[in-house]
Amino acid sequence: MEFKEKYQSLADLANSYMDNEIQENEGLEKTIYSAMRYSILAGGKRLRPVLGLAVAELFDSPPGPVLPYACAVELIHTYSLIHDDLPAMDNDDFRRGKATNHKVFGDAVAVLAGDGLLNHAFESMLKYTLSSAQTREDYKKKVNAMQLIAQSSGVKGMIAGQVIDIESEGKKLSPHALKYMHKCKTGALIRASVIAPAILCDATQDQIKSLGDYADNIGLAFQIKDDIMDVESSLEVMGKPQGSDAELGKSTYVTIFGAEESKKMLFEITNNAIDSLSIFGTKSEFLIGIAKYLANRNN
Amino acid sequence: MEFKEKYQSLADLANSYMDNEIQENEGLEKTIYSAMRYSILAGGKRLRPVLGLAVAELFDSPPGPVLPYACAVELIHTYSLIHDDLPAMDNDDFRRGKATNHKVFGDAVAVLAGDGLLNHAFESMLKYTLSSAQTREDYKKKVNAMQLIAQSSGVKGMIAGQVIDIESEGKKLSPHALKYMHKCKTGALIRASVIAPAILCDATQDQIKSLGDYADNIGLAFQIKDDIMDVESSLEVMGKPQGSDAELGKSTYVTIFGAEESKKMLFEITNNAIDSLSIFGTKSEFLIGIAKYLANRNN
Repeated sequence: MEFKEKYQSLADLANSYMDNEIQENEGLEKTIYSAMRYSILAGGKRLRPVLGLAVAELFDSPPGPVLPYACAVELIHTYSLIHDDLPAMDNDDFRRGKATNHKVFGDAVAVLAGDGLLNHAFESMLKYTLSSAQTREDYKKKVNAMQLIAQSSGVKGMIAGQVIDIESEGKKLSPHALKYMHKCKTGALIRASVIAPAILCDATQDQIKSLGDYADNIGLAFQIKDDIMDVESSLEVMGKPQGSDAELGKSTYVTIFGAEESKKMLFEITNNAIDSLSIFGTKSEFLIGIAKYLANRNN
Repeated sequence: MEFKEKYQSLADLANSYMDNEIQENEGLEKTIYSAMRYSILAGGKRLRPVLGLAVAELFDSPPGPVLPYACAVELIHTYSLIHDDLPAMDNDDFRRGKATNHKVFGDAVAVLAGDGLLNHAFESMLKYTLSSAQTREDYKKKVNAMQLIAQSSGVKGMIAGQVIDIESEGKKLSPHALKYMHKCKTGALIRASVIAPAILCDATQDQIKSLGDYADNIGLAFQIKDDIMDVESSLEVMGKPQGSDAELGKSTYVTIFGAEESKKMLFEITNNAIDSLSIFGTKSEFLIGIAKYLANRNN
């Protein structure tokens, strides 16, 4: 229970920050705020900001100075889900057990709500940087963290993965291409969730290397677990219809390697993630807990 | 001819920068690069970067240190056009006389190409900031410029305008609402095109005030001229079918104030823009030229 409570307390910090960051607005443009809030407050694991706050704690930093960057990653993640769900893309009606953004607000507003969240991710980080940075070194590490996040969410990261995903529908991907797609689509931003906070906390190169290995492994494990659940879980648990990837003709770890082999890979990769943290000793307990949680979750 | 040549030389600087910034890519994700390049290299007036470079010159700054920020605004402008043209939004088949992005690459890739350009705007500015900033003051003004751009393109600026635009289709807007919509939709980013470079060039508060008045006036003039041309020009000249705003039931300056009154407003507002620059004396000649060009253009 201790892990769950701690995880929830960090997720709550992120939720409060985002709730405050994107408030209702009564102007002529109020719909865009409602649409952004709808998806931001629709729940979800908050994995990315929780990872960032866990890294802050690893370095004995209070959450405050990391929170705006950790939550910006979540805003980016959320925008990508809104756009992914559009009829033009995956055409999903449900997300996290709720109607998708475009089913509630229409396609046009959903496009703009996604754009708005992506834009706001940078707007909020830049605003916080401007109000908080003191020294040249302080500016430098904050700009460095933002640049890493930008690179991870862009065409060298998440968006590259999305376009490969779309173009591979109905085709069988090679194991190499599948891995590359997921490294871009989910791995890059998960890595940034861990490394950007480490940069903000003045991590050494060795520490960044270890945390990078941890992040890459949990990113991969996250996707393999998702693919396993897609064929094994129900709408009730997953928040989306079972087997929806297979229905779209998408290559997954399960369709390429089979369910048993995928489960074996998940186990090994999770252990690799845990091993990467050895230089941190007992301080890495919570990050280890996250790796185990991701491998054992059922949604 | 001198004005035109100078305008073109600054537009060429922006074109070269963007051509180099978003190159072809031969990876699995190559489509996203092609789609981004298609819209980036599809021409256009390059008003926003030209304004930025003109401001740099006003302050005797070389173009180099302003170019990444000036072009980031153009990347943002271009992404907004790609998303605006989508079937989910305005459903336009032509832009600048060429097929729109989604007509060439499909809706899914067009959504991602827009996302990619928005993301890249921040990625490229942050990368340049990280590689160029020397002192604390240098970082500060660069972060300040980026923050202004982010705010202008987000839900307090351009995106607010877009959502009001969409929701007002088929409704008659009040003159106040029409003005507010355009101030957000096109005015905010044009203002940022002028003010962000001024911040980078260490402009004083008085200078920023004057340039802000100039930018607000040319932003408004730009829209009024667009509305006048929409009813008066042909596909050949405008690159989109004549009267397409009216067809969508959109309120414009012409539908609300009439063509004659709109032309009178355009004349007055252009003069206001020119008057705002008086504190700069003869150095503002080129910015005055831009104001006149915007009022007299036919595309």
